[in-house]
Amino acid sequence: MSAALDRLLVILGEIADLQKSAALLEWDEQVYMPPGGAETHGQMVGTVRKLAHEMFVTDEVGRLLEQLATDDAGGDPDSDMARLVAVTARDYDKARRVPASFVAEQARILSASQQAWFQARATSSFATFQPHLERFIELKQRYISFFPPAAHPYDTLLDEFEPGTTTADVQAVFATLRPRQVALIRELAQRPQIDDTFLHVPYDEDALWAFSRTVVTAMGFDWTRGRQDRSAHPFATGIGSNDVRITSRHVPKEPLSLIFGSVHEAGHALYEQGIAPAFARHSLGAATSLGIHESQSRLWENLVGRSRPFWSHFYPALQQHFPAQLGGVPLDRFYRAINRVQPSLIRVEADEATYNLHVMLRVELEIALIEGRLQVRDLPEAWRAAMQDYLGLTPPDEATGVLQDIHWSIGAFGYFATYTLGNLISAQLWNAFGAAHPSRDTDMAAGDFSALLAWLRTTVHAPGRKYVPKEIVQRATGGGLDAEPYLRYLEEKYRAVYAG
Amino acid sequence: MSAALDRLLVILGEIADLQKSAALLEWDEQVYMPPGGAETHGQMVGTVRKLAHEMFVTDEVGRLLEQLATDDAGGDPDSDMARLVAVTARDYDKARRVPASFVAEQARILSASQQAWFQARATSSFATFQPHLERFIELKQRYISFFPPAAHPYDTLLDEFEPGTTTADVQAVFATLRPRQVALIRELAQRPQIDDTFLHVPYDEDALWAFSRTVVTAMGFDWTRGRQDRSAHPFATGIGSNDVRITSRHVPKEPLSLIFGSVHEAGHALYEQGIAPAFARHSLGAATSLGIHESQSRLWENLVGRSRPFWSHFYPALQQHFPAQLGGVPLDRFYRAINRVQPSLIRVEADEATYNLHVMLRVELEIALIEGRLQVRDLPEAWRAAMQDYLGLTPPDEATGVLQDIHWSIGAFGYFATYTLGNLISAQLWNAFGAAHPSRDTDMAAGDFSALLAWLRTTVHAPGRKYVPKEIVQRATGGGLDAEPYLRYLEEKYRAVYAG
Repeated sequence: MSAALDRLLVILGEIADLQKSAALLEWDEQVYMPPGGAETHGQMVGTVRKLAHEMFVTDEVGRLLEQLATDDAGGDPDSDMARLVAVTARDYDKARRVPASFVAEQARILSASQQAWFQARATSSFATFQPHLERFIELKQRYISFFPPAAHPYDTLLDEFEPGTTTADVQAVFATLRPRQVALIRELAQRPQIDDTFLHVPYDEDALWAFSRTVVTAMGFDWTRGRQDRSAHPFATGIGSNDVRITSRHVPKEPLSLIFGSVHEAGHALYEQGIAPAFARHSLGAATSLGIHESQSRLWENLVGRSRPFWSHFYPALQQHFPAQLGGVPLDRFYRAINRVQPSLIRVEADEATYNLHVMLRVELEIALIEGRLQVRDLPEAWRAAMQDYLGLTPPDEATGVLQDIHWSIGAFGYFATYTLGNLISAQLWNAFGAAHPSRDTDMAAGDFSALLAWLRTTVHAPGRKYVPKEIVQRATGGGLDAEPYLRYLEEKYRAVYAG
Repeated sequence: MSAALDRLLVILGEIADLQKSAALLEWDEQVYMPPGGAETHGQMVGTVRKLAHEMFVTDEVGRLLEQLATDDAGGDPDSDMARLVAVTARDYDKARRVPASFVAEQARILSASQQAWFQARATSSFATFQPHLERFIELKQRYISFFPPAAHPYDTLLDEFEPGTTTADVQAVFATLRPRQVALIRELAQRPQIDDTFLHVPYDEDALWAFSRTVVTAMGFDWTRGRQDRSAHPFATGIGSNDVRITSRHVPKEPLSLIFGSVHEAGHALYEQGIAPAFARHSLGAATSLGIHESQSRLWENLVGRSRPFWSHFYPALQQHFPAQLGGVPLDRFYRAINRVQPSLIRVEADEATYNLHVMLRVELEIALIEGRLQVRDLPEAWRAAMQDYLGLTPPDEATGVLQDIHWSIGAFGYFATYTLGNLISAQLWNAFGAAHPSRDTDMAAGDFSALLAWLRTTVHAPGRKYVPKEIVQRATGGGLDAEPYLRYLEEKYRAVYAG
């Protein structure tokens, strides 16, 4: 190794240590921090992240990257080290383009904006939140101006969460998805509806936790390198691949959400646990994007966890945990109940067949806001129109409408699309794995996920940030981002579920 | 405020954020970290502490301190700001005297030494640990050489843990303590022994936790600014005064240790929760010494928690928690059982009346090693001789003798004395509080600790590091460090207990 690379790795290693420390502090905040610690913890995380940023944007890092790029010229551009230098240079360029004063301004308004959103949602008053959202739109446009002009201004925002994926990519898959998902929902609404009342009776929380743990263990979650706790909002976080933590919660009115939530978060966690150990302390040692992350959680939650083969294996054990609730419910009835489709107002409660419509609505509104085609003051009306259009519903108030998500209040524009990209990619990966492993469904019916996990490890997890999302998809499937596999999956599955 | 002070406070604030972050990482390591995370966490803590150190030892901090000392000349030397500058200058001087290469060398040998100690203890083989201990003694002598010569070389080591307290101070109180504590133990051994078999039967763990929580709450522990968890070794840690965490453990063969351990750690925690909020992000916002810290834990655990008035209040509730074990045991018998004296080999299991003898033995050996009067190879023999002398016992092997404590394996020389200093100071504070509050014992018998906590807050907690231990004692009692109050407490209490 060259001296320049040695030095860069020392710097990146310390930055990685700080980022992992911040991740642990944030985990603690959600899980164990006593309420009185909030202000102190905010300062701690702020300082740790600020120092990590300052250690990265130095002139020295710039010189090292330039020298390494020159030294590497003519070498294999796909080697780990060449990719490390390229990814780090991309991060560096981004970090240097955004002035510190801008970052500070954004941090300042974020806190007020989030407060205003909480209050606006509590009182269902969009007017309370409107000026903050206007301020954020202006800020995002300023952010975009720091970067070279892209084909679409929204590309710059999307790139934060889904590097290399463009607005045109997203719009293309949405154009395919939208009409067929809307049509599918309407078709299913005409069929006899599914009875799932036995899913909405009391279930013992301890038994739900115990069963979830069984499933997560079967998936291959490594408990020596991870743990599971309770939190108000389920999440997964990696403090390096050797310490990956998931959280879940019990929702009495939706008891099985503890199981599906655990499987979802464990899907995220398997990704983090699978990142190559060699990347642990530098820029490649993290997930490549939120979309790819979501492809993992959705694949396990839906393609695996809401499938018939999966439950043909696990249902007897679930019945043993809950004889009173499920003892008299045959597998087929249970399978149909957990796949009930019901257009609803709230994204986070949406089922698999309607979820993308919630996402598309938001992304389209975001793009219109950034383009300036839509004014913030007209957003509630635009939201209502789209909800009616896509899901046939009109929210009775703003709290269950335009104010339901936290994302805009914290300036996370460009984020929503990753949920749907994750869905689409999950089906693409699923098909690719199935083509390579014809025993996919019989393995699953035997509770054996080892081949699936091994394939995901190689194809998706281990590379970390070495490949951008499009490259991951290309390497796994031989093609590009494609809505067709997911649409076919939805149509086939739900026509069968509703044929019953 | 001057610009220099502003700037210093910004730097100290960020350093405090890093130190708190490291404290949380270390808490997590002991409490929730999955085992696979150990190496990653070690790197994280190492980097965070290293950056905190680097941010402190800069020339800029030195210049700011010099300027502030000049600006302040003629002002009130006891003002918070003057003390802040003085304490920070003391820390700075220490930090600058020790070369980075030395710190790195010590960190390198520490890991090997600790490993060797674990192995030596497991096999009861002193020879395995001997070279590491020799290395550490040499290292400590080198450390001492970085500082101006003190009256005694051990002073420099002691100052790390008990600033301003000297070897002569410690030797003076030990000279008073030793003969009378040895005589007391021998006297008690002649009396009829106390039956405590009912304390060594199975107690339900959940009920022990619930009762401990009741007691800790009554002491005044603020649960909105703290929490309690399980860990292999009980400890308390402050992540600033708004997030103070204690841990406890259930030891089936010594079930009530969960209660006394919780009270002990809560005593530490009340100190941390009571440090003045204004000091939160600078050098004064921490405990002034381990001895003062221990004075708080010991005061609550022993002076309060093993007293008759305390149990006259809490015993009925304890009996309700454990009717089978304690229903037929009257208060007096219980009180005598929890105060049974039994010379034993292991310090951490020692009772109140023998504990100091364990400590004195270690401190005397440490001083002899540092002076060069004692060679490491002769340590086991010296240990055995002292144990026989003080406690009338001879350890059957090295594991239960010279190898029992972790301290020397991690280079913590100068630490042991703080346990006994804590005991002595706890009795001095207790008497001072009693003199100011004649209702001390009746309050206690009513389960009311509010006056005690309020007095400790003002006298000990709030000042943080503003005063060194001797100043705390002086301000609380009007006198200096004194063994007499603790000796009188022990003699009176235990003669009464054993008169029964």
